[in-house]
Amino acid sequence: MRIATVAPPAGHGTTAAVAVEGRWHALPAADLCELLASGAALVPGAEIPGARPVLPLPRPGKVICCGLNYADHIAETGRDVPAYPTLFAKYADTLLGPGEDIVLPDRDGLQLDWEAELAVVVGTQLRHATPAEAQAAIAGYTVANDISVRDWQRRTLQWFQGKAWDATTPLGPVVVTPDEVDPTAGVDVICRVNGVERQRGNTRTLVFDSAALLSYVSTFTVLRPGDVVLTGTPGGVGMGMEPPTYLRDGDVVETEIPEIGLLTNTVRIA
Amino acid sequence: MRIATVAPPAGHGTTAAVAVEGRWHALPAADLCELLASGAALVPGAEIPGARPVLPLPRPGKVICCGLNYADHIAETGRDVPAYPTLFAKYADTLLGPGEDIVLPDRDGLQLDWEAELAVVVGTQLRHATPAEAQAAIAGYTVANDISVRDWQRRTLQWFQGKAWDATTPLGPVVVTPDEVDPTAGVDVICRVNGVERQRGNTRTLVFDSAALLSYVSTFTVLRPGDVVLTGTPGGVGMGMEPPTYLRDGDVVETEIPEIGLLTNTVRIA
Repeated sequence: MRIATVAPPAGHGTTAAVAVEGRWHALPAADLCELLASGAALVPGAEIPGARPVLPLPRPGKVICCGLNYADHIAETGRDVPAYPTLFAKYADTLLGPGEDIVLPDRDGLQLDWEAELAVVVGTQLRHATPAEAQAAIAGYTVANDISVRDWQRRTLQWFQGKAWDATTPLGPVVVTPDEVDPTAGVDVICRVNGVERQRGNTRTLVFDSAALLSYVSTFTVLRPGDVVLTGTPGGVGMGMEPPTYLRDGDVVETEIPEIGLLTNTVRIA
Repeated sequence: MRIATVAPPAGHGTTAAVAVEGRWHALPAADLCELLASGAALVPGAEIPGARPVLPLPRPGKVICCGLNYADHIAETGRDVPAYPTLFAKYADTLLGPGEDIVLPDRDGLQLDWEAELAVVVGTQLRHATPAEAQAAIAGYTVANDISVRDWQRRTLQWFQGKAWDATTPLGPVVVTPDEVDPTAGVDVICRVNGVERQRGNTRTLVFDSAALLSYVSTFTVLRPGDVVLTGTPGGVGMGMEPPTYLRDGDVVETEIPEIGLLTNTVRIA
């Protein structure tokens, strides 16, 4: 199934929804965070004509990211295949919906880079979970772009300050349940900038797959319904280009996993 | 003033409270997160006889930590004085109240270390704030211990997984408002393990003081009432000892800033 948080064509508010034959039908919650927390079954309600997906998970308690998880991206950074996942945290404020602009201040040297990623959404609470338990707790998968401010990321040893700018991480447009998509078997993760393909990786090459990441994280902290884990980005980021290339005002970033959907976001340097 | 989240001697629930002549008087909220978000004035209500402080801020949206902020601790790690604060994130699940046990699983090589810190509590929303604006937005100061799992912290380049174990970061016991304590002028930050003093630093030697940290963070993300920033730890951590020394089952960790209060927490390896 394909589930989303949708906005009606007019009026206020959002609704959780499920797609039935290409049309959005209401689910009993204001958004997917609320829906997953409630544990409600995905029983389609009334159709919402003209609804469009917005940020599917507006306020996850945790957004945990894995770095260096694709063999080709690891090679690009000159590192060895890791024994443990490299993890860092974001807050929900970093998230941005499909179609929304990525707005950043006009500041000397703000090196804005792209990182297309598969994101996994937690469906049921996890702590000290095995990979099999973690797999069973996955609500679904969505698309993310961990837009990174490279100069801030490199200011210190810890990446957080380059990764936690508000409203810079596009997420969505929909969440696809595990019965419809299997990233371990492999889906392509693609980033295009102004129509030029810059990244294309396949999740079958992930060092740590979704279940492995959720299990590992659950060793030290609880994961709750609606929490999100970003699984890392494949090769082809701007800082790896010769010369390094960063996003500029007006650039259009397309982030796509064909089996899930497409995010289109425009960079605005204000 | 000294404010806290207190529990009555019997019964359920908690209440925000303010100390008047050494006795706790109710404030109109269940805890300090709720109180600060409400913007309510600190007008003492009825006395709560026998109340005791618990975790003052049970669910901050953000708990952001600064590493490498004391000149002596920086020297201990062999690094230069930094141009930018080294920042990393925690989630509210890491927090633990005064008197509560620090419980960790019995796992080979879990290297548990202490990091006494001054914590600053945000009182009003901040974004793109100057240091003066940040200073004016401080609700108060409290005590924290950023208990760290060193082997997990060192597994990868990013410290997060060694810093985000649930219920391992004691915080409290009270929050002291800026009219009563001035960390920029200097307060001692002390850690004792089983009665032996291991750390004593003074906040006047911080490279980045509270206002500088809040201002810097507000460049990239909004800070809201109840958010907490940990300002870093002075020299004297266990991993810097010869040989490196870590916490064991039954160890009593005392974390103190005399002008604010004392946290006493016992390590339980279960």
